[in-house]
Amino acid sequence: MREIIRAKNSGFCFGVDRAVNEAFNIVRPGSKIYTLGPLIHNKDVAKELSLKDIDELNIKDIDTLKENDTVIIRTHGVSMEVYDELKAKKVEIIDLTCPYVINIQKKVKEYHEKGYKIIILGDATHPEVIGINGYCRNTAYITQAGDLNFPMKGRFCVVAQTTEKLENWVRLITNISKTAKEFMAFNTICKATEDRQKSAEEISKEVDAMIVIGGKTSSNTTKLYEICLNNCALTFHIENAEDLGPIREKIKNAVKVGVTAGASTPEWIIKEAMENL
Amino acid sequence: MREIIRAKNSGFCFGVDRAVNEAFNIVRPGSKIYTLGPLIHNKDVAKELSLKDIDELNIKDIDTLKENDTVIIRTHGVSMEVYDELKAKKVEIIDLTCPYVINIQKKVKEYHEKGYKIIILGDATHPEVIGINGYCRNTAYITQAGDLNFPMKGRFCVVAQTTEKLENWVRLITNISKTAKEFMAFNTICKATEDRQKSAEEISKEVDAMIVIGGKTSSNTTKLYEICLNNCALTFHIENAEDLGPIREKIKNAVKVGVTAGASTPEWIIKEAMENL
Repeated sequence: MREIIRAKNSGFCFGVDRAVNEAFNIVRPGSKIYTLGPLIHNKDVAKELSLKDIDELNIKDIDTLKENDTVIIRTHGVSMEVYDELKAKKVEIIDLTCPYVINIQKKVKEYHEKGYKIIILGDATHPEVIGINGYCRNTAYITQAGDLNFPMKGRFCVVAQTTEKLENWVRLITNISKTAKEFMAFNTICKATEDRQKSAEEISKEVDAMIVIGGKTSSNTTKLYEICLNNCALTFHIENAEDLGPIREKIKNAVKVGVTAGASTPEWIIKEAMENL
Repeated sequence: MREIIRAKNSGFCFGVDRAVNEAFNIVRPGSKIYTLGPLIHNKDVAKELSLKDIDELNIKDIDTLKENDTVIIRTHGVSMEVYDELKAKKVEIIDLTCPYVINIQKKVKEYHEKGYKIIILGDATHPEVIGINGYCRNTAYITQAGDLNFPMKGRFCVVAQTTEKLENWVRLITNISKTAKEFMAFNTICKATEDRQKSAEEISKEVDAMIVIGGKTSSNTTKLYEICLNNCALTFHIENAEDLGPIREKIKNAVKVGVTAGASTPEWIIKEAMENL
């Protein structure tokens, strides 16, 4: 008998849950509704939104928007510039930025204005980080692995992408403490991310195989995959139950199988995958 | 031939140099002059001051002061409470607190008033730390080895005793970053201390024996001794040339001998010891 163990904290976080619920409840007769980039990193949710005539708009195509259109800002948030562009286009803005991300944007703006140099721990190409960087006029030092390859003179304000790994944060702060004379550190890794990573860490130590469910482009899912792989060689990153096909053979001898899922993985996808296992 | 190599940065720092010069220049006919605790951790300097009728007063004996007495506050500084007690006694106060220590006191007061919990890296029994702690109404968490044995909830402001070791600072900040969500870090280890420790570190790697000169109760000298001992087994902590006696036999085969000295070691004591070597 195979035992399927689900990580205690997995799947939708507060911010994503709120955004998805609100997006599906939007009704704007006569107005075309867009999400600025995919609402969440999940193809199935994108498909369902499309059926409701809510389509994705690339941030580069804001120019094509018309007055009376409706634009949803997703949980990652956008820079002040993009926000201003949308306002100039006179579209209706539905801002579903995660409150924890708004908190980071505010801190970055405040400390940038106070003359602090901003350091962001995160992926420079990730929309959340691009948006945050917009709150200090795109002047932040952005580092993914916690390395410092920039001059360390002056006062610094350090924040993290909400989905970062605590070990990267600790490494970055350790490095900064070796050279910086003055810095303000806001550990803005969100609690949901921390809890999810801790649960994944624990469970992946106990199982024979580990299944991580979430979009291939999802930052927090990728980090869950890395954490689990560290403890369990038979770790696989899938997007949904269908992806289990080619894996089945590889985990056929696994008695205990752990399951976790990223912040943008809907509950029904997790359940379907667990039943298929 | 024995080669004596003096560490590039050794002996009096800016704050001590200023304090000693000013103390020796004080003339107050008809007024009894005291230093609150020894002016610097050096017996020879204390003896010379005593010849000029400048005597040491224990901080517990402030009550015995009389109006018209003169009191010198040494580089370590004192708490606000002690300062107020002196003012109430209507004595003349000559404040020779090191400007770098004043900076720490100000930061601690400011952030304490803003609601931050203060963490001091340093020796809880050292006058500098006792004085700094007074600027947050003696509520600081004080840790010597960078360990955290206190609850880590809330916002923190972290400072260091000016003579701390950088490795202790990095260890403390690393530990804090693992649990604190928000903290302000001021690396207040003074530049003179850093430079002195770096020079000691370098030179002690190259020599056969290492002599560290400074008061036995001097915090920064003790740290120099520890750093040198790490690199050179034949490291000795002496207060002056006289102390070389029993060591001479032990270092008789040392060809290269390194010399460094704490912030409170006068130039003439260093020179005398070097000549004796």
